[in-house]
Amino acid sequence: MALVASVRVPARVLLRAGARLPGAALGRTERAAGGGDGARRFGSQRVLVEPDAGAGVAVMKFKNPPVNSLSLEFLTELVISLEKLENDKSFRGVILTSDRPGVFSAGLDLTEMCGRSPAHYAGYWKAVQELWLRLYQSNLVLVSAINGKGTVGEALRCAQTGWVLRGAVGTCSDHRGACPAGGCLVALTCDYRILADNPRYCIGLNETQLGIIAPFWLKDTLENTIGHRAAERALQLGLLFPPAEALQVGIVDQVVPEEQVQSTALSAIAQWMAIPDHARQLTKAMMRKATASRLVTQRDADVQNFVSFISKDSIQKSLQMYLERLKEEKG
Amino acid sequence: MALVASVRVPARVLLRAGARLPGAALGRTERAAGGGDGARRFGSQRVLVEPDAGAGVAVMKFKNPPVNSLSLEFLTELVISLEKLENDKSFRGVILTSDRPGVFSAGLDLTEMCGRSPAHYAGYWKAVQELWLRLYQSNLVLVSAINGKGTVGEALRCAQTGWVLRGAVGTCSDHRGACPAGGCLVALTCDYRILADNPRYCIGLNETQLGIIAPFWLKDTLENTIGHRAAERALQLGLLFPPAEALQVGIVDQVVPEEQVQSTALSAIAQWMAIPDHARQLTKAMMRKATASRLVTQRDADVQNFVSFISKDSIQKSLQMYLERLKEEKG
Amino acid sequence: MALVASVRVPARVLLRAGARLPGAALGRTERAAGGGDGARRFGSQRVLVEPDAGAGVAVMKFKNPPVNSLSLEFLTELVISLEKLENDKSFRGVILTSDRPGVFSAGLDLTEMCGRSPAHYAGYWKAVQELWLRLYQSNLVLVSAINGKGTVGEALRCAQTGWVLRGAVGTCSDHRGACPAGGCLVALTCDYRILADNPRYCIGLNETQLGIIAPFWLKDTLENTIGHRAAERALQLGLLFPPAEALQVGIVDQVVPEEQVQSTALSAIAQWMAIPDHARQLTKAMMRKATASRLVTQRDADVQNFVSFISKDSIQKSLQMYLERLKEEKG
Repeated sequence: MALVASVRVPARVLLRAGARLPGAALGRTERAAGGGDGARRFGSQRVLVEPDAGAGVAVMKFKNPPVNSLSLEFLTELVISLEKLENDKSFRGVILTSDRPGVFSAGLDLTEMCGRSPAHYAGYWKAVQELWLRLYQSNLVLVSAINGKGTVGEALRCAQTGWVLRGAVGTCSDHRGACPAGGCLVALTCDYRILADNPRYCIGLNETQLGIIAPFWLKDTLENTIGHRAAERALQLGLLFPPAEALQVGIVDQVVPEEQVQSTALSAIAQWMAIPDHARQLTKAMMRKATASRLVTQRDADVQNFVSFISKDSIQKSLQMYLERLKEEKG
Repeated sequence: MALVASVRVPARVLLRAGARLPGAALGRTERAAGGGDGARRFGSQRVLVEPDAGAGVAVMKFKNPPVNSLSLEFLTELVISLEKLENDKSFRGVILTSDRPGVFSAGLDLTEMCGRSPAHYAGYWKAVQELWLRLYQSNLVLVSAINGKGTVGEALRCAQTGWVLRGAVGTCSDHRGACPAGGCLVALTCDYRILADNPRYCIGLNETQLGIIAPFWLKDTLENTIGHRAAERALQLGLLFPPAEALQVGIVDQVVPEEQVQSTALSAIAQWMAIPDHARQLTKAMMRKATASRLVTQRDADVQNFVSFISKDSIQKSLQMYLERLKEEKG
Repeated sequence: MALVASVRVPARVLLRAGARLPGAALGRTERAAGGGDGARRFGSQRVLVEPDAGAGVAVMKFKNPPVNSLSLEFLTELVISLEKLENDKSFRGVILTSDRPGVFSAGLDLTEMCGRSPAHYAGYWKAVQELWLRLYQSNLVLVSAINGKGTVGEALRCAQTGWVLRGAVGTCSDHRGACPAGGCLVALTCDYRILADNPRYCIGLNETQLGIIAPFWLKDTLENTIGHRAAERALQLGLLFPPAEALQVGIVDQVVPEEQVQSTALSAIAQWMAIPDHARQLTKAMMRKATASRLVTQRDADVQNFVSFISKDSIQKSLQMYLERLKEEKG
């Protein structure tokens, strides 16, 4: 209770109705196609929400071009969309997926962390914390459908190599990504994770590859998911796992052909929604309470920690160089 | 020490001698057959104890028809039998198994949790806690030989389906079970778990399927056994694992053909008993102390929590309906 | 910070330069062979240090005949060598391996724990704690190359048997070992573990087999590495895992043919060293802080606990018998 109370923010931002995609985009299942007819539509500029109120499911699609970086605005819209769904009793489950070809979310937005004021950094980090807290403690069933298509031909080597890879979840070869680890953050808060079986899609927390570090609560989330030893290795090396490795280490629950990601997500969420809500929610809260509480009780200290770290000259310099290299590659 | 002291109850109940089964029932091993001759026999109406003092092993057989539900009386007899074995220096290990065909233990007895007084619920829950604390902290080597035969022809779908499955450990198709999760509770406290390879035997904590939730200490036990992620999924979905899945997720240690369950248990316990007792016991206590302490220090609060949850009209109604459905199926 | 400060000891002991082995012994890689030319050499009588300053890597070789038992002197030299490397900015990674054929380290030195004064036991245990704290919290990348050759023909049965096995990491059949678990202690503190694929090499914490118990912080380290359930079973049974089982349970990360252990270690450490130091070090500290702190805050109590346990008549008697049996076997 206290946990939830402390993180609530009012839905104070007016949202524009997102363009509604044809049901086919939902995975061509009858449920999705059929449920769309009478369903209310809501969402925002960067978050499309396709409700299927009959099934009690909404599909939340990330649309923050080019690579769904977690900008401050995008973070805010995500939290507000989630809050609207939480407060609408007709929804019990949400599928998180991408509207952008080739990338689920490239992660935190480096431009929010580079060349700005300490106050900006603080505000940004608070929004990142907020998204995690809301998702991780959500009463809704959350399933991530990690989709995407590679748009760059060359394939960089993944995971086991020393290469700097961009895109926390996306194509390993995606040069457009502004980058680390936020996509994996979103996926790790879900109840179930499905990854498209494309060798160019990688998932992981690659902070160290950029010279920065994951916050303790994200470390805790990863450790809860894949265990202490695997998390220690993955975090130290900043590993990004391609599908087969991701499944083996347990950072995702299922790997399916790309065209089946959405339909698999709908089947999976149906299993979770067959459980009585109150029992499932209490059980979820019991499993996650200790981890969430650690951040709730140290939230300000964590912000201070981030601000002082990211403000360092050496870190700013390294992020600057990284961003410039990205620009050159895009140019 | 404090832990143990706080949970001791006097062996104040007179026990009737259980009928002694032929040694052959122990798995037809020479050890069991040979050791039986001069062995003392003790036990109670619902708990048969077949001692093999020569080997230092006792086989404790559950006999609470029809499906070894953990009624208040059965819980009490289990604790007393265990206490007697703990206090008898001639025993160092116990094999827990079922005398009933087709079911190890169908779990908590819903009739103890439905239509009774708050005082009754409190007393019942205290007895459930007591069994767990005694078993989990036992100085004896405990091995569970999870046996059973299906007696109902139809096979309900297991684990991955949305079906409500009855019988925490037993046949997935057993309609006689009065129900959740207690059998798995017993098995999870053991040092080693062997499951008969019968696709109709499932094991798990299916509380959410009935609209109730596992207590935190049982959650901790499962998490210790199969890890945080697998426990989160299994508990939220109320999964019951058939043998192959049970082995893979690690909720049991070994799956063997049904007729080899008892002999495998005897081989397994021999390996544990080859270790010097004091070193093994201190190591076991070190591994389990934190988990046991969490309940010991919050025992009353946990009882209050259970009583107020189970007394809710909505919960009582749902259990009532469930029990009536079971009766109809039996009729 | 506080953690590190509290465990520092001055490098107050003069070290003799260790004999330098030909580069070929490093695994015949060009890097090792090439880097050796201009490299400074340092080390001590029992710890050979072969620096490859160009690569930023040092190979630390254990040379405490016959079986690299962790005597008080050897422990001290290990800590000092490590401290020297930590303070020398030209090194960022260390490979820990054995100079002795057939054994990585047979473990704690029983002669330090038997027939001595309480003050001696206290001093010895403090040195064991110190080695663990230094290794576990090292800022360097640590990789263990667990090598060795069997020198005794007969092969005792490993792991799953009831046999008392000597040598925590070494040949299962090595009768010269004076014994438990210290070699595994060293390996478990590393960032990556590579074991030679020789069925006679086993690794584990076999304390209970000798009637003694692992300290809580070593239990924590094992639990972090292989999970709670596997650790509970391994510690209670005192299991020593041969290579295939060691890999499966996760107590080592890689098993390779014996002649490839060193070259594999060099490849592995290169991957870790490709990560920016400060990000990797902060991440490592974040992962290990809670575990290390538990010992730091209870260090004296842990010493007292060890001294009173090891001083018991029954324990001394059992160690005495064990040592005498070892002597007979050697004679």
